[in-house]
Amino acid sequence: MSKIKIAVLGYGNLGRGVELATRNTKDIEMTAVFSRREPSSVKTCGAPVFKMDEILSHKSEFDVLILCGGSATDLPTQTPEFVKNFNVVDSFDTHAKIPEHFAAVDAEAKKSKKVGVIAVGWDPGLFSLNRLYSESVLENGESYTFWGKGVSQGHSDAIRRVKGVVDARQYTVPIESALNSVRNGENPKLSTREKHLRECYVVVEDGADKARIENEIKTMPNYFADYNTSVHFVDLETLKREHGGIPHGGFVLRSGKTGENDESKHLIEFSLKLDSNPEFTASVLVAYARAAYRLNAKGESGAYTVFDIAPALISPKSTEELRKEIL
Amino acid sequence: MSKIKIAVLGYGNLGRGVELATRNTKDIEMTAVFSRREPSSVKTCGAPVFKMDEILSHKSEFDVLILCGGSATDLPTQTPEFVKNFNVVDSFDTHAKIPEHFAAVDAEAKKSKKVGVIAVGWDPGLFSLNRLYSESVLENGESYTFWGKGVSQGHSDAIRRVKGVVDARQYTVPIESALNSVRNGENPKLSTREKHLRECYVVVEDGADKARIENEIKTMPNYFADYNTSVHFVDLETLKREHGGIPHGGFVLRSGKTGENDESKHLIEFSLKLDSNPEFTASVLVAYARAAYRLNAKGESGAYTVFDIAPALISPKSTEELRKEIL
Repeated sequence: MSKIKIAVLGYGNLGRGVELATRNTKDIEMTAVFSRREPSSVKTCGAPVFKMDEILSHKSEFDVLILCGGSATDLPTQTPEFVKNFNVVDSFDTHAKIPEHFAAVDAEAKKSKKVGVIAVGWDPGLFSLNRLYSESVLENGESYTFWGKGVSQGHSDAIRRVKGVVDARQYTVPIESALNSVRNGENPKLSTREKHLRECYVVVEDGADKARIENEIKTMPNYFADYNTSVHFVDLETLKREHGGIPHGGFVLRSGKTGENDESKHLIEFSLKLDSNPEFTASVLVAYARAAYRLNAKGESGAYTVFDIAPALISPKSTEELRKEIL
Repeated sequence: MSKIKIAVLGYGNLGRGVELATRNTKDIEMTAVFSRREPSSVKTCGAPVFKMDEILSHKSEFDVLILCGGSATDLPTQTPEFVKNFNVVDSFDTHAKIPEHFAAVDAEAKKSKKVGVIAVGWDPGLFSLNRLYSESVLENGESYTFWGKGVSQGHSDAIRRVKGVVDARQYTVPIESALNSVRNGENPKLSTREKHLRECYVVVEDGADKARIENEIKTMPNYFADYNTSVHFVDLETLKREHGGIPHGGFVLRSGKTGENDESKHLIEFSLKLDSNPEFTASVLVAYARAAYRLNAKGESGAYTVFDIAPALISPKSTEELRKEIL
């Protein structure tokens, strides 16, 4: 059986994760990397590298293109643009803008008869699926999402913009007592501050005013002001040694009731504990590239999310094998 | 908007659970109960009761029939039979016989142009979905399923068949140290005995030989011999008061690795903690009745499992709402 051929656009942590994820599959291979950078400067784990603007001349060499750019500026234009010629999968994660992104991709994909799967990863992605399944099954209930413990790139970047900061790493930490209140079926109303802590590891310039920096971080609107934040000053070597990874994870919980008088309580809990956020996200993208290929092979086109895709389509197994082995 | 009308065949714990679950929905109503028993002897929470053999004369009164019989003798014949006239959903849970059950339902459903969704519930069902999603995403890894703490009807029944036993309740209990070994990424090879304990609460006849009964339980092949089993003798009142519920639950875990040298570990964990096994199972059945209705309304027919059904189809929300609110 010939393998499904995928290519990536962009080769940062996520693009590299995609290449590594394909090594764990038997039915998918990575045949090309496209980059804005000079191909000779991009070191892959084996996949050939081409210039992004030459992608059309490689059209016959892959079945699905995984877009590994960022949600802020890359994907809003790239996904609708590349779906004009390719089946694509992206990890667009700006929750508030998903409807407009979906509409833009859908319009182009329907014209080109290609499939565009958007917002794939773990949140949005696997977490969204668990919110859907659990709220559909327990309609009488409350949903909760907690993130972490894990590194937030956005918050780490925000700290790096403070004057006097050399480097920083920010961890989002779910508050255990809040999690346990949900698990106990107490259906708590939780403020932002009650759900997560923010832990910051910060390297500053020699002689910098640490009190001022700590205050600027803790009072930063949107990023930190609404949270209990701890700031730890460390040297650069410690930061690299102890905080060099990109772990993440989190919890989706649904607490619900059934019965004649709501007397039966039920708890559905899904959690992830990930050593590498980009490698795991890439693994989800690769599984959904399989679905994109299969949908298009069946003649389907348009934009899709994880909600629209039958689970069997992401598995390397046939539906017969799935029913026999894991149903 | 008119509601989706569902009926149930069989009104035991599961059928009653279905009726209660529809009360938590806005778009589904229960319009009929069909029973082998004399209708006047069946006390529902409001739904009208009819004789099972009159079901064809009520064909226009509901969209989906939920089959609430048992997997051993009822469903293997009922599901293929009733899908000749109705869209059906069942909770067939004999894992080893799912392929043949699927084939039998599929053949009849394709002829009648109806939809038959089989093996719906939490295991098979939500647990199966989590096995599929997690092994598809982390192909390089191991899956584990633990059940409990919860009541096993089959094991409770087996104890009741021991001479001198008046009543009994058996709990399946996952072994915490095994769960934690999986969570720690140790990928243990676990024997049956290492995964679960069996806790039995047993009421015996006056003057019965407790030592003989305890030994017969603990050495019973298939049911108890392969497990560490504890037997607690209690009086009937205690059994009813403290062990009268039907709780259940369990865990599906996937431990996997990614990276150039498998250096990144990941853990996906899904768990359920249910006060009422039948009420929760019924809630899943009702959500999939929604999908059965929608699939058939789109002109689809044949047998389906949870693997074949796009998640959005089980939600009361539209795909637009889902993308906006929970993606």
